[in-house]
Amino acid sequence: MTLTTWDIRPETIGINDWAPEIDSLLEDPDDNRVVFNVDEADTRPYDAIFLGGGAAGRFGSAYMRAMGGRQLIIEAWPFLGGSCPHNACVPHHLFSEVAAELMLARTFSGRFWFPDMDGRITSIKEIVDLFRAGRIAPHAIMNFQSKEQLDLEYVLNARGTIIDANTVEVAGRRFTANNLILGLGARSRPLDCPGADIHGVYTYETLVEDLDYEPGDTVVVIGGSKTAVEYGCFFQATGRRTIMVVRSELLPILPDAETRDYTITMMKEQGMEIWEHSVATHLEGDHNGKVKAITVKTPDGVRRIETDFVFHGLGEIPNSEMAVEKLGVKVGDEGQIIVNPQMQTSVPNVYAIGDLIGRPMEMFKARKSGMYASRHIMGEDVHYAFDEFPDFLHTHYEVSWFGMGEEEAREVYGDVTIIKMPPETEDGWEVALPATDRMMLYAFADPRKSGFQKLIIASASRKVVGAHHVGAGARDAFQYLFQMYKRGLTIDDLAVMDELFLNPTHFIQLSRLRAGAKNLQDL
Amino acid sequence: MTLTTWDIRPETIGINDWAPEIDSLLEDPDDNRVVFNVDEADTRPYDAIFLGGGAAGRFGSAYMRAMGGRQLIIEAWPFLGGSCPHNACVPHHLFSEVAAELMLARTFSGRFWFPDMDGRITSIKEIVDLFRAGRIAPHAIMNFQSKEQLDLEYVLNARGTIIDANTVEVAGRRFTANNLILGLGARSRPLDCPGADIHGVYTYETLVEDLDYEPGDTVVVIGGSKTAVEYGCFFQATGRRTIMVVRSELLPILPDAETRDYTITMMKEQGMEIWEHSVATHLEGDHNGKVKAITVKTPDGVRRIETDFVFHGLGEIPNSEMAVEKLGVKVGDEGQIIVNPQMQTSVPNVYAIGDLIGRPMEMFKARKSGMYASRHIMGEDVHYAFDEFPDFLHTHYEVSWFGMGEEEAREVYGDVTIIKMPPETEDGWEVALPATDRMMLYAFADPRKSGFQKLIIASASRKVVGAHHVGAGARDAFQYLFQMYKRGLTIDDLAVMDELFLNPTHFIQLSRLRAGAKNLQDL
Repeated sequence: MTLTTWDIRPETIGINDWAPEIDSLLEDPDDNRVVFNVDEADTRPYDAIFLGGGAAGRFGSAYMRAMGGRQLIIEAWPFLGGSCPHNACVPHHLFSEVAAELMLARTFSGRFWFPDMDGRITSIKEIVDLFRAGRIAPHAIMNFQSKEQLDLEYVLNARGTIIDANTVEVAGRRFTANNLILGLGARSRPLDCPGADIHGVYTYETLVEDLDYEPGDTVVVIGGSKTAVEYGCFFQATGRRTIMVVRSELLPILPDAETRDYTITMMKEQGMEIWEHSVATHLEGDHNGKVKAITVKTPDGVRRIETDFVFHGLGEIPNSEMAVEKLGVKVGDEGQIIVNPQMQTSVPNVYAIGDLIGRPMEMFKARKSGMYASRHIMGEDVHYAFDEFPDFLHTHYEVSWFGMGEEEAREVYGDVTIIKMPPETEDGWEVALPATDRMMLYAFADPRKSGFQKLIIASASRKVVGAHHVGAGARDAFQYLFQMYKRGLTIDDLAVMDELFLNPTHFIQLSRLRAGAKNLQDL
Repeated sequence: MTLTTWDIRPETIGINDWAPEIDSLLEDPDDNRVVFNVDEADTRPYDAIFLGGGAAGRFGSAYMRAMGGRQLIIEAWPFLGGSCPHNACVPHHLFSEVAAELMLARTFSGRFWFPDMDGRITSIKEIVDLFRAGRIAPHAIMNFQSKEQLDLEYVLNARGTIIDANTVEVAGRRFTANNLILGLGARSRPLDCPGADIHGVYTYETLVEDLDYEPGDTVVVIGGSKTAVEYGCFFQATGRRTIMVVRSELLPILPDAETRDYTITMMKEQGMEIWEHSVATHLEGDHNGKVKAITVKTPDGVRRIETDFVFHGLGEIPNSEMAVEKLGVKVGDEGQIIVNPQMQTSVPNVYAIGDLIGRPMEMFKARKSGMYASRHIMGEDVHYAFDEFPDFLHTHYEVSWFGMGEEEAREVYGDVTIIKMPPETEDGWEVALPATDRMMLYAFADPRKSGFQKLIIASASRKVVGAHHVGAGARDAFQYLFQMYKRGLTIDDLAVMDELFLNPTHFIQLSRLRAGAKNLQDL
């Protein structure tokens, strides 16, 4: 393979100009250009080389550059931004939007302008293809933004090799820096099951790269946490029988039992089949080497399901091997590189950031760990611990939460006050929760589907200790509400805020109905 | 008309039991029961009578009761909660959801599972009927909640008459209290135009009460602010030619010019016709007395439009007449009762709350003014000024904002930093803004429609001075972000928050890309 150099430093490349270039670099096996955006005239040493230009490396670089430092990103893909826009969080969000819209279309099948969805199976491949055709756009934005707006230096489309703690080789050149920041990401944990490699068995990564047929009418999803649920709900929403094979229990990540119950009940009422305490034991291929059946050991015995489409989401393995081999960095049980609160590894001048340092493998941690590594290198006294954070996932709904569930809160605080909708009445979930846009049609025609929310307050201190929401349009709020919670948000603080009614989170107004009392009561 | 008393005090009436009762009281002209939920055994005087049981009166009552006070609501409708769930904010939200979903369906007409929408006009009446059939449910919830959970006293389905500052007569009985709190709301400002009263000319109130035919293919909407735009976009989304007749300019309420431009441009690209500096001069009826045409004076001359459906949204007039007549309370230019920051009117022991005290006629102000009146009566030293607040409206999108627009910020602060998406590039609005759920399909197939957002920062102080968002899923966040802004939120604060990526507001991560610099730059 002949590498050629594409020196883009002197050029200004617009977003629209980037798109066909990235497409060619990704799709054309003969296009092996290495993208060089290096300021050869600058004689200053690099403060850091970021090995990996995903969210962690790109945001760390931007922060370092903004502080006046000099950085270089080395990235194997021909674009910056990493897996998120390429095969991870962005397609997940597109697929989850499709799941939500299909649930709406099925609920209102044949009414108003909605088509008759009865028995109709919609295409998975068309949606995957829509994503593939469009994913170049965010890549183009980030390459453009990183060079023209953020003034970053980078080398793309060539794999960097660690030489030592200050040196990385890429495309035959060696770059040195005062520090090395590793942001090499993670990859899907393989399925440990005979037949796991046959055609028709996908992860989130291979689904968008390789799906070359329309799946049949039965899907099996292996796994029980975020990714498995998110993709499973998308597949189910297309009208296919969808079975989730879960080793232990579904969605243990949801901390509040009642919120979890609503979430899973709604999945089941959409038609999801959930086989807990079950393990896939064998995948059978047909004469073309494509999956045709899966055998699952369940509490009720061994079951064999005919299917041509299996998806597994079993978590991530950090890509730490090269750093261990070349530098001897310390890693933990799951292969994650161990770092201190300054993102320093066990090796001097070597930092690690992003999914490479383990859980939570979330975007905010990737970006912030890059930022904090840069701040430390640039001389700031920083300390970053990602021990508590707001969280979310998608089913056919958006599910958002932070803090404790009711059960833990009762254990820790004894007396807690519960503010929730729908209310605790004989009608229960049948009561419409008019939690605004995208839940309004449900509220008026199928109230049970209109969502669930709960705020948990420690009665003595009057402080919020947990918040939970199933519906739409509340996730963004949880980012900011979480900050207020961390600063000691009380029911009295909430009671004087200005709600934008109808609001997805009813926390403000429901708090106001109760905050007048010295002894708080549930609502 | 014979009034009969329905004493519900001894009963427990569940949500499902309330619904048919309210329906009968509203719809059956022979059902004149007055709903009495009065604790006749309680010999304490009332701390306050709330005349009007809308949002202001109900929340004020709840707060007073929670503080240990005694209150009585007197309400002409047979339900608590007022106009919002009956004909105002709740139907508006349902209709705006329909507008958003129809824009999506039209954008993807014939693709994936979406039906062919080409040239298709969908029903307005079916959606109005859906609302009417369902609006009893929130009424039932509020009657239930107010009695069983909040322990309020109330008299419903009879109009109260002010006797003096301590006395209200209702259904032949006189109730006295230490204070009178007026929460009588507001009503639509009439259209000042010959023919304004003929059949087929609607306000938000009469639309849901009276619409008895399917409108034809042309709609004329008179007015240029929130309500007119919200209903206009709904009508347009159904596939009808929709003309907005605006006396001055459309949506002057939007403080940022670029955000306003995006908002209005998207309305126009959906097909809205906007006639600014135009006035309706004449409405013609047909031989059945139903509207058949409207004449409009425009800057380009007089135009006559044939239509059988006219809607106007021209603001609200406070229902202050009885209080002026019976008590002599002072009112302002628009008929609003003048109150001080304790919600006291010019008459001792008489308070006024909600829409009755004028702008902003928003839910948060209604509820909070009721709460603050109660706190003052119960002896707290309170001061409520509603001078700054977050705000929103719907087009086919959700539009949310607080603080200044860019133009005012430049005048006030001189050097400001603009953080926005899509970026300021040659591609402009064609760049996809992956601002998450309900914008993802647009981002991948029609990026121009994927939204717009802007954060304005005073460069010297690094403080946020304005935030603007067009899209979906950000409105709830603005409630909480506004609180942080009021406490001095900076770009550096934002940079260390935890985004729930993909998030509707990109403010956290975009701030992080710039916050490292002492001298901030736009993004």
